[in-house]
Amino acid sequence: MFIGVDLGGTTIKVGVVNGEGRILYQNARPTYAGRDYPLIIQDMIEQIEDAMDWAGVGLEAVKSIGIGVPGLAEVQTGNVIYCTNLSWFNIPLGREISQHFGKPVFVENDATVAALAEYVAGSTKGLKNSVFITLGTGVGGGVIINHKIYSGSHGAGSEIGHMIVGENFYNCNCGANGCLETFASATGLIKYVRKRLAERDVATNILRMANGRLEDIDAKIIFDGAKGGDALAQEAVHRMVKYLAIGIINIFNILDPERIAIGGGVSKVGDYLIDLLNQEVSKMTFCKEVTYGDIVLAELGNDAGIIGAAFLGENS
Amino acid sequence: MFIGVDLGGTTIKVGVVNGEGRILYQNARPTYAGRDYPLIIQDMIEQIEDAMDWAGVGLEAVKSIGIGVPGLAEVQTGNVIYCTNLSWFNIPLGREISQHFGKPVFVENDATVAALAEYVAGSTKGLKNSVFITLGTGVGGGVIINHKIYSGSHGAGSEIGHMIVGENFYNCNCGANGCLETFASATGLIKYVRKRLAERDVATNILRMANGRLEDIDAKIIFDGAKGGDALAQEAVHRMVKYLAIGIINIFNILDPERIAIGGGVSKVGDYLIDLLNQEVSKMTFCKEVTYGDIVLAELGNDAGIIGAAFLGENS
Repeated sequence: MFIGVDLGGTTIKVGVVNGEGRILYQNARPTYAGRDYPLIIQDMIEQIEDAMDWAGVGLEAVKSIGIGVPGLAEVQTGNVIYCTNLSWFNIPLGREISQHFGKPVFVENDATVAALAEYVAGSTKGLKNSVFITLGTGVGGGVIINHKIYSGSHGAGSEIGHMIVGENFYNCNCGANGCLETFASATGLIKYVRKRLAERDVATNILRMANGRLEDIDAKIIFDGAKGGDALAQEAVHRMVKYLAIGIINIFNILDPERIAIGGGVSKVGDYLIDLLNQEVSKMTFCKEVTYGDIVLAELGNDAGIIGAAFLGENS
Repeated sequence: MFIGVDLGGTTIKVGVVNGEGRILYQNARPTYAGRDYPLIIQDMIEQIEDAMDWAGVGLEAVKSIGIGVPGLAEVQTGNVIYCTNLSWFNIPLGREISQHFGKPVFVENDATVAALAEYVAGSTKGLKNSVFITLGTGVGGGVIINHKIYSGSHGAGSEIGHMIVGENFYNCNCGANGCLETFASATGLIKYVRKRLAERDVATNILRMANGRLEDIDAKIIFDGAKGGDALAQEAVHRMVKYLAIGIINIFNILDPERIAIGGGVSKVGDYLIDLLNQEVSKMTFCKEVTYGDIVLAELGNDAGIIGAAFLGENS
């Protein structure tokens, strides 16, 4: 039996997970980010104890605890290097949880955790080499190489969202210009539409679809508009897909995985996105003699954070 | 004892290499690319026999034979998927050599082979995760992950040169636009200078440095010009370095290696290039809390092709 913790900027989710990757019980609490880290860790400990109680699982049955964090971590030491959302820098998260429970604790980036979940029980199950990309507020990534999580030599690998794929009209939060995240996240898509609306040179119904409220324009409205033939929505989606395709081509040319799985909120548009992506990617493959990996939708959705975290110890 | 073969577009080099990565004897013959592949393979066999004779090494002392090719190959089957320079497609190179000598034969992309050589006996010796980039007529790459060559699921990984890093004024041979190779190879650098010379809007001595002969402008002249303060040369070198830095940032953000080694003809400009690269790369790192890998010059030069090929079997 394993404990998986999904530490998010807004919610902490804890699950008790069996050896097949099934969640037996889970609970959730607000993170209240901004608090001192010992308070968040204390809440997490209580949540873990609560989850074990409700699942009827004693500590002796728990093999290890895994935690996914919205930032960078060293999986072996359990040290969180960096979490912007939580204002965490060099927090000994793994050590604190491990000292309390007397169990091995493993900590990883949340997108890497989701990649592991998809590998254990989802869209990339059992594949030797795969990449998971999550498209949401930002763009995250997780890499599986030789059946193992790959996070690089300093825990800074698989940061797919900060791959530079072009020049953009605004800089990324990280300070660089042209990060994939600024083109292919929901945030990037919406920013582009707002910019184009301000330019007032394209006919569009997008603002009407958001009931005239600029702040209510979201990725769903833009994709619905594109499907319905709205010119600006199609322009914005085409642009997003173009740069995401460049990111995917770069992954093919560096890692050549068997499969790339797309998850996160934006992936809810489904096959429409995958079809557009395949069209763009096929234009740019380097070697026409090679059958590259396929691009699919991720399968586990919100549960990926708990399931993947639970299996960190087994995959280390 | 190992045999290493460096099959190039113009020369075939064969070496007998000992377990420490030292070349005991080597020979070279023109490839005469364009011939039917059995003729090239026959020459290669004669060269291997010749090298063993001169080195005084019998077949019984040879553990395996490795071959680096200017294209894509499947290391396990020894099948060459694709070599533009040789017009080879799906050539059973490994099987033919193996049948002749009765020894295991391993075939890999030449840049990957050079990466292995640097790992065995050069600039990245013994490092867990490293990347080798060769800057020459094109841009090639090799990736070492967990002390092993990494070529991806279809032999198409580590094609660093076809990572898309921006928009360029001409398309890559592969058909895509913006490949790193079109910015950071000697060819790309020279094309840009010629284009700018044709525009006649910048003061420069480059044409004079090439004795007035447009076709004699090479990477060395351009780098010498940049060091000497020539405005166009500096512009061209700065542009090359900018896009190479983007490629390196993308490698850091995906693979986070301990070290990136730069080889190939262009790397002969030495620390001047490394210093410029470090300046650009440090501007674009995603996470300032992380110490990324360092960027160094490769050490083995032309011998890398033989040494790396010789060790393919040991690394598989």
